[in-house]
Amino acid sequence: MNWNAIGNLLGRLLIFLAITMFLPMVVAIHFREEAFHSFFLSALITLILGLSIFKTTKKISTLTFKDGCALVTLSWISATIFGALPFLFSGVTSSYVDAVFETMSGFTTTGASIIRDVEVLPQSILFWRSLTHWLGGMGIIVLFITILPNVGTVAMNLFKAEVPGPVSEKVKPRIQETGRILWSIYVFITLLEIVLLVICGMPFLEAVNNSFATVATGGFSFRNNSIAGYSPTIQYIIAFFMIISGVNFSLYYFVLKNGLKSFFKDSELRLYLGIIGLTTLIIAVNIRPLMDSLEEAFRHAIFQVGSIITTTGFTTTNYDSWPVLAKFLLLLLMFIGGCAGSTAGGMKVSRLLILFKNTIVGLKQILHPNAVYSIRINGKIIPRQVVNSTLQFFFLYILIFVLATTYMCFLGYELTDAMGSVAATLGNVGPGFGAVGPIANYAGVPYSGKLLLTFMMLLGRLELFTVLIMFLPDFWNL
Amino acid sequence: MNWNAIGNLLGRLLIFLAITMFLPMVVAIHFREEAFHSFFLSALITLILGLSIFKTTKKISTLTFKDGCALVTLSWISATIFGALPFLFSGVTSSYVDAVFETMSGFTTTGASIIRDVEVLPQSILFWRSLTHWLGGMGIIVLFITILPNVGTVAMNLFKAEVPGPVSEKVKPRIQETGRILWSIYVFITLLEIVLLVICGMPFLEAVNNSFATVATGGFSFRNNSIAGYSPTIQYIIAFFMIISGVNFSLYYFVLKNGLKSFFKDSELRLYLGIIGLTTLIIAVNIRPLMDSLEEAFRHAIFQVGSIITTTGFTTTNYDSWPVLAKFLLLLLMFIGGCAGSTAGGMKVSRLLILFKNTIVGLKQILHPNAVYSIRINGKIIPRQVVNSTLQFFFLYILIFVLATTYMCFLGYELTDAMGSVAATLGNVGPGFGAVGPIANYAGVPYSGKLLLTFMMLLGRLELFTVLIMFLPDFWNL
Repeated sequence: MNWNAIGNLLGRLLIFLAITMFLPMVVAIHFREEAFHSFFLSALITLILGLSIFKTTKKISTLTFKDGCALVTLSWISATIFGALPFLFSGVTSSYVDAVFETMSGFTTTGASIIRDVEVLPQSILFWRSLTHWLGGMGIIVLFITILPNVGTVAMNLFKAEVPGPVSEKVKPRIQETGRILWSIYVFITLLEIVLLVICGMPFLEAVNNSFATVATGGFSFRNNSIAGYSPTIQYIIAFFMIISGVNFSLYYFVLKNGLKSFFKDSELRLYLGIIGLTTLIIAVNIRPLMDSLEEAFRHAIFQVGSIITTTGFTTTNYDSWPVLAKFLLLLLMFIGGCAGSTAGGMKVSRLLILFKNTIVGLKQILHPNAVYSIRINGKIIPRQVVNSTLQFFFLYILIFVLATTYMCFLGYELTDAMGSVAATLGNVGPGFGAVGPIANYAGVPYSGKLLLTFMMLLGRLELFTVLIMFLPDFWNL
Repeated sequence: MNWNAIGNLLGRLLIFLAITMFLPMVVAIHFREEAFHSFFLSALITLILGLSIFKTTKKISTLTFKDGCALVTLSWISATIFGALPFLFSGVTSSYVDAVFETMSGFTTTGASIIRDVEVLPQSILFWRSLTHWLGGMGIIVLFITILPNVGTVAMNLFKAEVPGPVSEKVKPRIQETGRILWSIYVFITLLEIVLLVICGMPFLEAVNNSFATVATGGFSFRNNSIAGYSPTIQYIIAFFMIISGVNFSLYYFVLKNGLKSFFKDSELRLYLGIIGLTTLIIAVNIRPLMDSLEEAFRHAIFQVGSIITTTGFTTTNYDSWPVLAKFLLLLLMFIGGCAGSTAGGMKVSRLLILFKNTIVGLKQILHPNAVYSIRINGKIIPRQVVNSTLQFFFLYILIFVLATTYMCFLGYELTDAMGSVAATLGNVGPGFGAVGPIANYAGVPYSGKLLLTFMMLLGRLELFTVLIMFLPDFWNL
């Protein structure tokens, strides 16, 4: 392990994190909030520690993929540990575990909250919550390597370890340029949503917060009833931005470059939109009797489907009171998640596409044992190695889900609630069902459960492998 | 497709099935039951149809694996269609769908029942129910090829298509000899249980029925409260026989040949016993407050764990009222199932062992991308192809579970009940939870649900692929 290089980059990341804390300080100054001191103290601690690590380690030479995994995992854990300080110092959370839960939930764009009443919180704290979403959405490391000078060859291994999906696509040969393009698209979409929300009458800061939480597919809300209190127009706008944020951001680059024709040719996108269309239809019909009009049924259906499949977790209604069919479909969407290379969590649509095609190939292979089949997506052959690791990912995802659900059952949660809490944190969704459902939250979960679910968020965001290889004894041998 | 050969064997199987119906006729004569006529008529219809098909088709020449899959699937469907006739003719079931559900549940050793009161049924009908278990347990086709003269090379393809597990193990080079050895062990274990139960005071026919249902890991019971009314000693005996019937029967042959030393070296067996031990312990502690004594908690725990992991489905208590942790563990055991080459259903312990080892290899591969790893079980390398088909099997199993659960939710079942009904039929367990739990049964499920669950039993028993390749358009092309 190249601890020197890892430490050096980690130190720089902490310095970067300290700098981002100046943004909520500006908000605190504007609103003359006491929380300013919490941010100042947190930034100071983070800065001092970051500088000390940076000064005592040498500059990067090379970084293997293994080092990259260690750095990415440690970066996310450090960002959470220090990003949690403002919540603790300001007294918003009563314990450090709660603060860590809330911060991990922010950075991983989960949006699961332990805060019962967000409307009494200082504006700067709300802004910080949304900012953690936004920084984590496109990838804090991706942002970091984009703005960092001279990281060169180490960047690719960091990129691979953090960007979600079965293969990490580069839109440009140089990884920093790729990161810059992805972040530019991300910023543009966010700005567009802010403008539209302000036009619809939402106050500026609220629009910024909601846009951060939408485009990052996070789900932390400015209001206790999430998006339920806004006008139908705003709900449709947010639904639209959630759904486009669940799309592979590389596709937007190719649209700009090659036009819209290539966009709808992407098979992952087509399946993603197909799933959204089909489940929206089924749920709209299923919940129609509970609603006043067909429009209302459709609006809540598409909003919740979009919110859950993109793993945002915003709500416009208490879907926990919906019929069991609608709820089960939402539970499935938590597993499916968005597209690879998007800000969404879950297993990713492209993985399911690979798994499904591989199963059809398996059946065909029985009929023609000597034929050689390959799996193609968008005309490209998926290497056997990627298929294998996708299958391993699927099994691991289910295994972790089952083990964590067992623990939540042990804590006394009903089966639906236990499954929902794990699916919603592992999938970076946010709200689950029942005790951790849309009108409840995670405040009542015992500490051990909160820590477990915090770990689920990290595992889900970094897609298991990046984190789990650190548990192999082999990892520490070299 | 070699329809001539398939038809010829299918005709012979129907003749064989008609002959087996003479056994319940003997019981009916002994008890002077009117049900005799139902069996006579059913046997006559089956015999005439079997003879007609047999006479109009040519003898077997060769049979490909594809033909084998078609024959095995059609045999199981035919056995169910005609085996259901006695239930219909005797008026035990009010509809043919119910009769088919009960018969498929019998042959696939599921043990899910639509009969609300079994204690009023004629003895011959109860015997036929248990006999379908016993014929299906070790494999109706395996029995068939064992007693059939001159099937030669076709036997292996039939064996492969019917015997559960990731690889079909032959204990002897000749497949008929293998079948004969497995069936002999099966008969011996069944006789042993009958003797022990009779010694404990159980009436002879009841002991036969219960032993058929135990060793086949079926679960149809002679009494409405399953095994709850018997003495603790009998409950322990049945628990013991369920657990040993979930073991790979080949192992018993090797024990006879090489002694007991090799027995506990088998890693699938060790994992199987480990899972039973661990879950029994957790559940016993978990249900202790509900029980009068530690012995009672242990007895119900080991009985239900043994019953569910071997997918028998006998019950000694209403586990539906247990804490959610115990119930969730039972749900998981429905998926795990017994060992390959046993009479149990579910995914099989060896498949999970392969999946788990493959995942560890996947993690190691990230650390050492150029290393070549292989997966070994009992020291033998598992071919890549077997690993792949195991992974495909796992994904398909989950996919089918999810789709069927969605339909059960659509029918209005609560999530736990919907999941339980599919897990319990796909895993060939029998009772699920709640509306289809240990003190309820499947009588109230709408027809479409019954047909779906009947199909789940078939899929589970023939381990998906054998049945599903018939849904490929390719299958019908040649």
